[in-house]
Amino acid sequence: MTGTHVALPLIALLALVAGPAGSAPQPPIGFTPARGAAELAAERRFDTRVDRAEMGRWIARLSAHPNHLGSAYDRTNIRFVKSLLDAWGYQTRIERFEVLFATPKTRVLEMIAPRHVRAGLEEAPVASDPVSRQSRERLAPYVAYSIDGDVTAPLVYVNYGRREDYARLAERGVDVRGKIVIARFGEVWRGIKPELAAAQGAVGCILYTDPQDEGYSQGEVYPAGPWRNATMVQRGSVERIALYPGDPLTPGRAAVAGARRAPFATLAQRRHIPVLTTIPTLPISYGDALPLLRALRGPLAPPPMRGTLPLAYHLGPGPALVHLKVAFNWKLTPLYDVIATLRGSERPGELIVRGNHIDSWTSGAMDPHAGTVAELEEARIIAQRARAGTRLKRTLVFAFWDGEEAGFIGSTEWVEAHAAELVRAAVYICTDDTGRGLLSVAGSHALETMFEQLADAVSDPDTGVSVTARQRAHARFAPEDVDVDADGDGVHIGALGAGSDWTAFLDHAGVPSAYIGFNAETLWHSAYDSYAYVTRFSDPGFRYSAAQAQITARMTMRFADADVLPYRFGAFAATMQRYERQVEDLAAATGDAIAARNALIADGAYRSASDAVAAPALPFVAPALEAPPPRLDFAPLRASIARLRAAADAYDRALDAALSSSGEAARSSRRRFAAVDALAMLAERDLLDARGLPGRPWYRHQIYAPGVETGYSAKTLPMIREGIELHHWTAARHGITVVAAALDRYTETLERAAQLLGSGSRER
Amino acid sequence: MTGTHVALPLIALLALVAGPAGSAPQPPIGFTPARGAAELAAERRFDTRVDRAEMGRWIARLSAHPNHLGSAYDRTNIRFVKSLLDAWGYQTRIERFEVLFATPKTRVLEMIAPRHVRAGLEEAPVASDPVSRQSRERLAPYVAYSIDGDVTAPLVYVNYGRREDYARLAERGVDVRGKIVIARFGEVWRGIKPELAAAQGAVGCILYTDPQDEGYSQGEVYPAGPWRNATMVQRGSVERIALYPGDPLTPGRAAVAGARRAPFATLAQRRHIPVLTTIPTLPISYGDALPLLRALRGPLAPPPMRGTLPLAYHLGPGPALVHLKVAFNWKLTPLYDVIATLRGSERPGELIVRGNHIDSWTSGAMDPHAGTVAELEEARIIAQRARAGTRLKRTLVFAFWDGEEAGFIGSTEWVEAHAAELVRAAVYICTDDTGRGLLSVAGSHALETMFEQLADAVSDPDTGVSVTARQRAHARFAPEDVDVDADGDGVHIGALGAGSDWTAFLDHAGVPSAYIGFNAETLWHSAYDSYAYVTRFSDPGFRYSAAQAQITARMTMRFADADVLPYRFGAFAATMQRYERQVEDLAAATGDAIAARNALIADGAYRSASDAVAAPALPFVAPALEAPPPRLDFAPLRASIARLRAAADAYDRALDAALSSSGEAARSSRRRFAAVDALAMLAERDLLDARGLPGRPWYRHQIYAPGVETGYSAKTLPMIREGIELHHWTAARHGITVVAAALDRYTETLERAAQLLGSGSRER
Repeated sequence: MTGTHVALPLIALLALVAGPAGSAPQPPIGFTPARGAAELAAERRFDTRVDRAEMGRWIARLSAHPNHLGSAYDRTNIRFVKSLLDAWGYQTRIERFEVLFATPKTRVLEMIAPRHVRAGLEEAPVASDPVSRQSRERLAPYVAYSIDGDVTAPLVYVNYGRREDYARLAERGVDVRGKIVIARFGEVWRGIKPELAAAQGAVGCILYTDPQDEGYSQGEVYPAGPWRNATMVQRGSVERIALYPGDPLTPGRAAVAGARRAPFATLAQRRHIPVLTTIPTLPISYGDALPLLRALRGPLAPPPMRGTLPLAYHLGPGPALVHLKVAFNWKLTPLYDVIATLRGSERPGELIVRGNHIDSWTSGAMDPHAGTVAELEEARIIAQRARAGTRLKRTLVFAFWDGEEAGFIGSTEWVEAHAAELVRAAVYICTDDTGRGLLSVAGSHALETMFEQLADAVSDPDTGVSVTARQRAHARFAPEDVDVDADGDGVHIGALGAGSDWTAFLDHAGVPSAYIGFNAETLWHSAYDSYAYVTRFSDPGFRYSAAQAQITARMTMRFADADVLPYRFGAFAATMQRYERQVEDLAAATGDAIAARNALIADGAYRSASDAVAAPALPFVAPALEAPPPRLDFAPLRASIARLRAAADAYDRALDAALSSSGEAARSSRRRFAAVDALAMLAERDLLDARGLPGRPWYRHQIYAPGVETGYSAKTLPMIREGIELHHWTAARHGITVVAAALDRYTETLERAAQLLGSGSRER
Repeated sequence: MTGTHVALPLIALLALVAGPAGSAPQPPIGFTPARGAAELAAERRFDTRVDRAEMGRWIARLSAHPNHLGSAYDRTNIRFVKSLLDAWGYQTRIERFEVLFATPKTRVLEMIAPRHVRAGLEEAPVASDPVSRQSRERLAPYVAYSIDGDVTAPLVYVNYGRREDYARLAERGVDVRGKIVIARFGEVWRGIKPELAAAQGAVGCILYTDPQDEGYSQGEVYPAGPWRNATMVQRGSVERIALYPGDPLTPGRAAVAGARRAPFATLAQRRHIPVLTTIPTLPISYGDALPLLRALRGPLAPPPMRGTLPLAYHLGPGPALVHLKVAFNWKLTPLYDVIATLRGSERPGELIVRGNHIDSWTSGAMDPHAGTVAELEEARIIAQRARAGTRLKRTLVFAFWDGEEAGFIGSTEWVEAHAAELVRAAVYICTDDTGRGLLSVAGSHALETMFEQLADAVSDPDTGVSVTARQRAHARFAPEDVDVDADGDGVHIGALGAGSDWTAFLDHAGVPSAYIGFNAETLWHSAYDSYAYVTRFSDPGFRYSAAQAQITARMTMRFADADVLPYRFGAFAATMQRYERQVEDLAAATGDAIAARNALIADGAYRSASDAVAAPALPFVAPALEAPPPRLDFAPLRASIARLRAAADAYDRALDAALSSSGEAARSSRRRFAAVDALAMLAERDLLDARGLPGRPWYRHQIYAPGVETGYSAKTLPMIREGIELHHWTAARHGITVVAAALDRYTETLERAAQLLGSGSRER
């Protein structure tokens, strides 16, 4: 799975604070000046050793056959990667889990009226791309964790299938109860779409790619160009990951052999597994969607809901009558994570975890193997360095996760299995698919300042300017391609939702986490995510895989080797101030919106705006009046953040002072710095609340979470923000208390750590 | 011609200041309380007499055959309308002009490479619409006043063909010199497109309708629905009306028999006529555009430039190589305006001019006849009233203009012929095509307050609420359908550009002018603008033609019968304050934009944002540095507007006082009011400057003008605003002086008029 390029709302635009041109590079955060200079030299050596040709050969090999969870070739890849890591000198092991996985058995989609059309549901083979012809080995286009079902009902078009889409449908008098919905991919995670459709009363869900979003309206289609052609289907998971990711049968527990599992043998049992869809769901191509959409009538979709198929988008319901039948092979499937360890020389108990997944939906040359090979290359070069005698201070863990596509299963089960050790994990550094494009960075905001240094240090392969200079320039010409979170007070890295393997690390275990990747044009999750595609389109020459290795290795090595862990908490505190202002503004705006709508209802404006004469008619149906929201008191949160701000700044100043004065890193400094590490890495855990988020106890982080109705993209201060958005005022009010308490714990940890740092300077 | 619904930027959303619910209606502006009550009663009687069935029969008759300028059936219609007006008791006459008109002789469009495709260039007949089959009588799809030409060149896609589109092309390294451009209809008047293309060095211009703008993306296409189908072509004029409208050979002079004319017999002579295009131009359907656009390569069009044809929009140039050949019959063509007069009982020298055109591009059931019949119905009922003994104070002129479609020729020549009499014209009330939809009102801002009363008085036929309540409600649900000029300090009627017959009245002669119409879904200027279309789609039951008659008749009758002409100058002064702020803000923003772009150039950001590796490549080419603009001193303009504000408010107060106290309208009041009229109607002429606008002396109005690069839509304070927009800083600076002087004249007139009004109260 991936999709960060689709849905992360807060993509990074880094380093507007770059130093003056021509100035010497700043010492890396967390290093004394002397060791910092040595680190920068090591990084430059790293760059010279990156072997793009080797990475290309690995991609070709890893993507030679379909390699989904449970497939023979996935197992082959896992053995191959382990053998490489073994050869390079890592302590490697394979950790096995047994997880529920579903593969397609029956897929039928047909329109019964007004005329009969049976959907093809297959991706056309392409002569220039041998992998595209492996249709027997490949999983047929489907979504994993749809429930089995056989339904026939009139069709309704629901745009992206978000809450606001249903609100606009309701305004136009369109009700999806008892209907099959057809939703286009995009804007929110695909798994949200059947969930919200079912909540609205729909009995089936069809997902399709509109050419406006990823087809001909974006550029030439495959094989002429990199965009989705009329037969291509986006596979994917529709597990309800906003509830919990990982094995559907063992939430919060590792799915090891013999673990306690929910039963799943019968349909009735599967209906009780809360992360499966409750309605049958099937993804299709826009070629298959065209006749269905063309057969719809009813009100016209409002202009923002219209795609670029050559037709008038109507909402329905019907007259298109659709039969949808899906059934799956439900099996307990073995899953294998590859874990390679390089023991730290000085603080071996502190873990730096670096990971990318290894399973794919299809052959996965880009998703994940363009990322897999970057991690492999990092591991190879860092091992060389270790063999040459330069050990890193902390213990490095290189992980290659299986079963990510189905719902981050390999990483989630591993986190659940190793929860106790992970208390000592200082960071999780996550990558996934990558390719030619703009850098995208998101993560815990204690890492934001470090990212600024990292991205400025690496050149964009296409242009030779730094990746940040490229991104800044691009944002000015094609702002539609660069989602920036420019919030008035600068530009920031994004927050993490649930798009890849960081999810369990950050949201469940409280490990500070980062995602780094280049946003490629992409045919992900399709039969065409192939070596031919990567070499022709997404990364000819594997230069972006190389650039990703350069950035990510820097982060890994700095984390592993810094004198003090390279957090900077000032950026976190500033972010909390920003989020707090956002939720206050949101509360005010939500109250205003409720009042404005109530006024419209009272004015009879819905009736006045209706057009009963138009063909088709354009009705506007007034919703029910809604009570105005209660006042929320944000004062306790503001007070907590003010204390946080002071403590964070004090810590950052104390760290600078301690590092610049520690000279040759006396043994006493080293002991003190280790103690500071031990505290500082715990700060992120202070943001967990053991009770979890409302209705989803697996999610413990009180600052970052995937939105319950967005999936990929984050909701920050989730209890408060989603409380307001979903008009759950009690939850929002309670959230203010919970978040303030979490931040108070964090502040206290920082105060203690700053005290430790300061005690050194007093010693001298 | 019409297109107000396409391009008027400042569509009215009226009467947010409607009185409290249930309160008695305010007396109409300009009436004493007693006469105002009588007027309201007369208006209610008017409403009861409107005969929709008769209007429908007239539409059927007027649109039975194509009736373009110079056609036999146009002449038949003119005789028919005259006969009606004669029968109703008007003094009628037909005024004849002889004007240059061009009809199609040769139309060839073919793609020569990469494969041969010949464009069909014909609109498909529709079985359910007999008029659509009259292809021999009808003018073939073309644009009038394209120069003849025969060119072969690579094709370039230029989006809407505006200045900013060419700037984005240049940024992407695409040059149109020596190329044929293909531009889509929309955003600016069609005639601007070949003009700007030629200025950029193009040798030919193809215009097409993208389905995003008026085709399937808007709804079902004809005959299934009201939108443009794949064969439909938008005819129209491409006369360079922003220079001058009317007969191309006689700018500023009436094109009567024997008038001095520019020679036009040879191509060389025609090349010297400044309002003809300089490159051959042809409009086509999206069916014909599809293979051409599909054959383009080169950089992808930026996302906002992409339409909804099922293809990737590339800019070119080529490889599509296109041959375009057009030739026209250039003839001096007789033109006939119908003028009907009803002499005023008390101030016969004061003229109230009401007009709609009568010629069409095709059969014109909607454009213009849905509007033509509304005017006829007004004339019929008002004549009844006169025959019943109630004469109106002032002289009414009902005009039916020929040759509007070619460039407002009938109205323009008439204004040029009657310039001397028109000094006594108090208002020109303009309508054009109309149909089911939202009310659109624009005009001189001394009429704004009157419009508020008018529109509140008339019910929307579909919903039964007032037209303004409908519009307000609609704006809240479908803001994309309602262009409002909400400027922070309220909501305003739009300013007039050049979209119909008001142009010569307002911009050349300084007659206060108004446009009133309902914005219908429309197939204007096509073979399908038929009776079948009107009765199925644009106005079943002719209810909106009736509503338009109700609103417009109110305006006409109030103007004809008020005790004092119903201007309110406070609204005009407030509008000038608004416009002044806009141009100051525009100057600041333009300076900022130049500085920002210079900084990007200096930073090398164009190079950094380029993507040479993409297929197709995405180059960004830096433009030349531009000198920062000089500072403009707006203080003289602000000072003039402050004086205007005081004088306008004083006049409005004095008028209220004079009317409320004048009781039974003594003879002395009547004389004094006549004197006030004579002054007040001259105020708009004070806004003319005999030197005209820069480079276009025919346009004299210093407040309103069509944009030189927008056509339909207005540029207010045109010398200043366009000086800034086009970076003609000297013109902008001079414009401040010229506008301030015009407003000073206006202020002086108002002061004299207010004094006259006040002298009456001193008399008592």
